[in-house]
Amino acid sequence: MNYLTATREALSREYDELKKSYDAICAEGLKLDLSRGKPSAEQLDLCEDLFTTLTSGAEARSESGLDCRNYGEAYGLAEARRFFSEYTGVPAENIIVCGNSSLNLMYDAIARCLLFGTVGSPRPWCREERLKFLCPAPGYDRHFAVTESFGFELIPVTMTAEGPDMDEVEALVAADPAVKGIWCVPKYSNPTGITYSEDTVRRLVSMTTAAPDFRIFWDNAYAVHAFGEEDDALADIFALAREAGHEDRVFYFTSTSKITLPGAGISMIAASEANLVGIRAAMSVQTIGHDKLNQLRHVRLFAKEGALHERMLAHGRVIGRKFGLLLSVLRRDLSGLGIATWTEPRGGYFSSLDVLDGCAARVYALCAEAGVALTKVGATFPYGKDPHDRNLRLAPTFASDEALTKAAGVLTVAVRMAAIEKLLAE
Amino acid sequence: MNYLTATREALSREYDELKKSYDAICAEGLKLDLSRGKPSAEQLDLCEDLFTTLTSGAEARSESGLDCRNYGEAYGLAEARRFFSEYTGVPAENIIVCGNSSLNLMYDAIARCLLFGTVGSPRPWCREERLKFLCPAPGYDRHFAVTESFGFELIPVTMTAEGPDMDEVEALVAADPAVKGIWCVPKYSNPTGITYSEDTVRRLVSMTTAAPDFRIFWDNAYAVHAFGEEDDALADIFALAREAGHEDRVFYFTSTSKITLPGAGISMIAASEANLVGIRAAMSVQTIGHDKLNQLRHVRLFAKEGALHERMLAHGRVIGRKFGLLLSVLRRDLSGLGIATWTEPRGGYFSSLDVLDGCAARVYALCAEAGVALTKVGATFPYGKDPHDRNLRLAPTFASDEALTKAAGVLTVAVRMAAIEKLLAE
Repeated sequence: MNYLTATREALSREYDELKKSYDAICAEGLKLDLSRGKPSAEQLDLCEDLFTTLTSGAEARSESGLDCRNYGEAYGLAEARRFFSEYTGVPAENIIVCGNSSLNLMYDAIARCLLFGTVGSPRPWCREERLKFLCPAPGYDRHFAVTESFGFELIPVTMTAEGPDMDEVEALVAADPAVKGIWCVPKYSNPTGITYSEDTVRRLVSMTTAAPDFRIFWDNAYAVHAFGEEDDALADIFALAREAGHEDRVFYFTSTSKITLPGAGISMIAASEANLVGIRAAMSVQTIGHDKLNQLRHVRLFAKEGALHERMLAHGRVIGRKFGLLLSVLRRDLSGLGIATWTEPRGGYFSSLDVLDGCAARVYALCAEAGVALTKVGATFPYGKDPHDRNLRLAPTFASDEALTKAAGVLTVAVRMAAIEKLLAE
Repeated sequence: MNYLTATREALSREYDELKKSYDAICAEGLKLDLSRGKPSAEQLDLCEDLFTTLTSGAEARSESGLDCRNYGEAYGLAEARRFFSEYTGVPAENIIVCGNSSLNLMYDAIARCLLFGTVGSPRPWCREERLKFLCPAPGYDRHFAVTESFGFELIPVTMTAEGPDMDEVEALVAADPAVKGIWCVPKYSNPTGITYSEDTVRRLVSMTTAAPDFRIFWDNAYAVHAFGEEDDALADIFALAREAGHEDRVFYFTSTSKITLPGAGISMIAASEANLVGIRAAMSVQTIGHDKLNQLRHVRLFAKEGALHERMLAHGRVIGRKFGLLLSVLRRDLSGLGIATWTEPRGGYFSSLDVLDGCAARVYALCAEAGVALTKVGATFPYGKDPHDRNLRLAPTFASDEALTKAAGVLTVAVRMAAIEKLLAE
């Protein structure tokens, strides 16, 4: 039955059935959670070897002979820079390896722009009258929160299956010098799971910007996070930027948070030589150095050829199974109803579910009442406001298989109820 | 012989003797280093147990049951906050535990004041016309560099045996609302090794400041770093600040960099409840959390009653021996000459040597030529400029005993030569 073409009577009958199921679910007193993009314990256990990788000071010498127990190396160990270079394709000399949080690096990068400006800035950003930032949406709420906290006006940009709508982006950046940057999760994007097309990447680095110091914040968090051997291809943004004569436009970030452990990984920022001058100058005042022992642990863990790929396949098997469970319930319960679409990514941590316009908040509330926590509705949009009230981010990794299947079933009942409520009210 | 009252002939003869020794030293081609406040390998070896303290994911639960391998706890584990509370005396609820660098926390604290202001600020500091910061000198060059990098005017304040000259401080802060803060290393101060008297601490928190948002940056880096059982007593600044009604005036920092490992310790910032509101708000946007596994390692390492004290006594034995070697050479070679004074601290990492006015740069150069690296002359003053050209920071911890004794001998020859050169030129 397609809900959109069904009779009111048919919909009413359907609703009564759903309501019975829903009441029965509520009576169970569930406490399930699809809200968090966190690895499960099963994934964390894959990283047991990190705990035994460096068990003595005698092993704490870097390849340059530095005693990593002591101060030094504000820009990270050479071998750690090479580790990130190997899988991101960014030259090691453009990489700085830091502590456990790439979000922290993005926050600091914007703070530096505000306080000092960056290459091409007429003045520090905090001296500008107005500041705006492009937020492809649905997108990552923590990105949006950083620029919101610093007082930027957040400008939503439509997300497509190929990345942000580049017609919109090009028009916005050409028209207004207050537009200083754009947030991007270019591969297995949070939350839609799509990967930017080469054309999108090329247009991002080629477009004319009114701001002479426009920056792409390239958060490649899921660079090696395919579920299996089938992997999306992401264009090399630095190579394309160099070709376009705009290599200063890119700040590139990633971390091992979802390769080893989210609480205790290592992170990096990469940028052009010209950008690095300012970044290094500030960073060498900010700290004497990050935790080099943890950098060593990571380098040693992945020293063997193919070790990273093998590890990611192990993660992918677990995550792929979770996505399979979630998507099979969505397909079973929502296909053909005309009331929901969702993404089926090949990697990453999220799927994005679009319900009928005006129904997402109701789905969220129904799920909450039935004991299923979803990511706060609207969170994937600037200021937490989904203009169509239709997007829900699904994060299947953290729950157990059983909890996930159960929660997905509750979700689809809620989606169908909310849709019928809307259709009957029209 | 007192050089100041000796005849020119006696000085000339003395100089010839010294020059012979000096030339002989130069011929040895030494390469010694007294410049760095770093622990020696002997000290780092005391911390071998940190490498085997957490060797499995099963041990990675916090006392609250949190799986520390995963995301969370932007403000640090409760047990890590308690660890710092126990030895600093700051209530655990006022403490936030972070990554490996307290310098980073100080840098970020100033960046937050610049971008957002703090409790009592009429506006973000970056919106002020002029910004000034008090720099007790000789002091810590990395402190001065932070405020210099952000464009503050650095105002030197005379250091006394009881801390900064409080008459100067009180006059400066009362007169000018542009004076926003003061750098303090209150215990075993870098580089003089003195500890602030209770009267100094009391005046710091009681004084009237023209700026409504004046902040004391209290870097208690050497809180538990006595060489032996004899320890300087430092007043409880938060208690005195509360008494004075100025508890928002204090930002308190420390780390385990010189308790466990400088490259891989943990750090904290503490502040009043009112200050913490703003700090937490910014920090929860800046990061999802710091490395909790390293926090756990530290907590477990020091879980046993008295473990911290025992560890610090072990460090103290090594460092005390180094200071003994250095000071015995200074006493042997420079006592009674009237050309040098130096501090003999009971803890910390530094001694401060004052030579005749106008001679420090010459001593530095003579040492450099003879293969002995000292901390860059002037580094202990704002902008790297010692107005009297007389202060040298001595850092005896990193060198081997043999190298240290040798280097100290070269240093005293250089001090005597520079003094005679000056006296003969008058």
